[in-house]
Amino acid sequence: MASMLACPAFCPPTTAAAFTPLRPHFHLHIHHHQHPGKTAASISGSIDSHYRRPSYTPSHIPDPKYIGIFDTTLRDGEQSPGATMTTKEKLDIAKQLANLGVDIIEAGFPASSTADLEGVKLIASEVGTAVDEDGYVPVICGLARCKKRDIDLSWEAVRGALRPRINTFIATSRIHMEDKLKMTKEVVVEKARSMVAYARSLGCDDVEFSPEDAGRSDREFLYEILGEVIKAGATTLNIPDTVGCTVPHEFGQLIADIKANTPGIENVIISTHCQNDLGLSTANTLAVCNFICSVSLDMIMVEVTINGIGERGGNAAFEEVVMAIKCRGEVLNGLYTGINTKHLVTTSKMVEEYSGFDLQRHKAIVGQNAFDHESGIHQDGMLKNTLTYEFISIEDIGLQHTDKRGVVLGKHRCLLVVQGKRWTEVKQCHEQYVDR
Amino acid sequence: MASMLACPAFCPPTTAAAFTPLRPHFHLHIHHHQHPGKTAASISGSIDSHYRRPSYTPSHIPDPKYIGIFDTTLRDGEQSPGATMTTKEKLDIAKQLANLGVDIIEAGFPASSTADLEGVKLIASEVGTAVDEDGYVPVICGLARCKKRDIDLSWEAVRGALRPRINTFIATSRIHMEDKLKMTKEVVVEKARSMVAYARSLGCDDVEFSPEDAGRSDREFLYEILGEVIKAGATTLNIPDTVGCTVPHEFGQLIADIKANTPGIENVIISTHCQNDLGLSTANTLAVCNFICSVSLDMIMVEVTINGIGERGGNAAFEEVVMAIKCRGEVLNGLYTGINTKHLVTTSKMVEEYSGFDLQRHKAIVGQNAFDHESGIHQDGMLKNTLTYEFISIEDIGLQHTDKRGVVLGKHRCLLVVQGKRWTEVKQCHEQYVDR
Repeated sequence: MASMLACPAFCPPTTAAAFTPLRPHFHLHIHHHQHPGKTAASISGSIDSHYRRPSYTPSHIPDPKYIGIFDTTLRDGEQSPGATMTTKEKLDIAKQLANLGVDIIEAGFPASSTADLEGVKLIASEVGTAVDEDGYVPVICGLARCKKRDIDLSWEAVRGALRPRINTFIATSRIHMEDKLKMTKEVVVEKARSMVAYARSLGCDDVEFSPEDAGRSDREFLYEILGEVIKAGATTLNIPDTVGCTVPHEFGQLIADIKANTPGIENVIISTHCQNDLGLSTANTLAVCNFICSVSLDMIMVEVTINGIGERGGNAAFEEVVMAIKCRGEVLNGLYTGINTKHLVTTSKMVEEYSGFDLQRHKAIVGQNAFDHESGIHQDGMLKNTLTYEFISIEDIGLQHTDKRGVVLGKHRCLLVVQGKRWTEVKQCHEQYVDR
Repeated sequence: MASMLACPAFCPPTTAAAFTPLRPHFHLHIHHHQHPGKTAASISGSIDSHYRRPSYTPSHIPDPKYIGIFDTTLRDGEQSPGATMTTKEKLDIAKQLANLGVDIIEAGFPASSTADLEGVKLIASEVGTAVDEDGYVPVICGLARCKKRDIDLSWEAVRGALRPRINTFIATSRIHMEDKLKMTKEVVVEKARSMVAYARSLGCDDVEFSPEDAGRSDREFLYEILGEVIKAGATTLNIPDTVGCTVPHEFGQLIADIKANTPGIENVIISTHCQNDLGLSTANTLAVCNFICSVSLDMIMVEVTINGIGERGGNAAFEEVVMAIKCRGEVLNGLYTGINTKHLVTTSKMVEEYSGFDLQRHKAIVGQNAFDHESGIHQDGMLKNTLTYEFISIEDIGLQHTDKRGVVLGKHRCLLVVQGKRWTEVKQCHEQYVDR
């Protein structure tokens, strides 16, 4: 089948949809990013009135400008070499993700170990039931291979959440099917179809299906298997670039082709999952967001991890995708997310410490140097006007400028951290503040 | 003026140029990446016959598929907070850059300090005169503000090289001109024009001009100042996204607009310089490469740094841009570079140690985890077929697989390093090999 459009990615908007008003109000709640049981003062205290979140429906996002954020720090991030975390650490991170206003938290892979099962269960019952005053509560998701035992354990782990999701996957590229799974295409389709149906039969209304290694899969086969899982009840289709080999226009075209050729796809949410092996994961993610919105196709969710942690070169970084959308929404068709970015640095520090994945100084947005200026020319400019060399407001990510280089604690000091400080130091400060 | 094309970036090739044979042979030398005074054995020993480099002309690249690599690790990288290097370290890095086959080495900013002046001079005389048997020798470039003293010092520093270049810059965005420079547009144009002409008058045939903060500059003003510096003798126009605020389709459009509207631009080389504040520098760089080639416009050079070091979130990473072009050339209009990627890991280790910018484990291509696999599913796949989770050949960047996780020294052991080892350890191994 032909591609839907000859030039799908990165084109200026050409449809009427591009001129719909930003952030329409149907089915929206203003989201204050507050967590029950905490006072407003212990959260950011700063309510950004333009955060609005469409209401939750498993297979539908009513606003095409809204990009749902699916965080997989606790699953894909945690499975990186050396990143293992304790259950308590995972729970802490899940709470931070809820403070950020993440739409879906992939809390783990329950079939991989008893510890993971128990960890996901705990997050489902504690974080997945804590509804804030605006009705926000994150979806809690568990990963599962297309195996009955995996689905059972995933359901056991997430069912305690108010909004449980199972994300089930099977590889669809020739190399993965032949050399790893040793399965024919027919067997792969049957496993996908039957396991999605099985997940739905358990009472799980929110089922995601991921064709692993989609970036290298045969297009026609993708359309076929995706069409089958939609019929079987999948509500989200997640398209992973598992080996991180695609470039932005190519990944945008893949999603365009899937959107154009998969039967029933108009009734489900499309999701991206981009690995970073070529350093292009953020761009690939944004390519899809931008393209889909520019042609008036709605319902996009993106899978990201805090600090971009993950196997090999990592995943699309939460802070990069979200801040690009926040700061450059005007050139991204007016997209927005429901994220309260003031929690970004605090969450980044927590994940850095708990995962043991130290960030390089020049990590975008959250690195130690991200807002430092060394050259005399740059320092001169910054002293005259900070906008000369910074276009991101550091207050937006939970920092403050000082007259010396770097940043210091401000009046909302529980959420403002000194660049370079570890999470433990930030936490001490936080506890000090909460205790008094 | 209107944009040249409604949808310039990332479109599939539509012109006849897209069907020209790859790597045509006019004016080409096969580049063996060998350094005079060293034996072949002390270099990689591995000659990749598809490396071909167009002949050097300051204002012209005869092959539109060839992307020139301008490395600014020693200038933009070294000016990052905490990255200061000794003259000896800079010379070592410059030699490694020559081993990689870099087209242009920006060796420093001579007017910034006597040490920088002397460092650039040394690199110009040692690295900038070492012609290999195929005629390759890197251009040595010195940065200069649009000030007579800067130009004089830059020329003094680079003139000892066989192919000297001066890169002179002045800010062109409203905020930079008004708040930092306190200059009118007319004064900025006059300074740019007169200083480019002055640099040429000294006998420097290769003069680059950079309008600082081009990403936020007024388009019409850019066309005007760039047209003026071309008339004054500039041979390369470098377009920097100084604050790293652009997204790929936007930066591609900027270059397209400049190309369409600047008088005389067909006679000069266009260069990109992308900062990484949103994590998009590699994608922005590739967006321009891909776009320009897809519409049959030639002569592109990209500015990058090893490990992506640089102010704030850093620069476009050398290893990401070069490996994306090498591994995915078929979806990037057949682009290629003259880089011998087998030196990438060795150079990365050297820069990591000398700059003090430790890389995060999940840094793409050169991070400690870049080719590690943790999850049972991934390990299972890797044991069956390494292509299941890797599409980059690790041998291409100077590593080797072992039966244990990680990599070991191979037969060209002076160039193969263990992931996670420091440069000093790699160097000891190298010296051991050379000595015996």
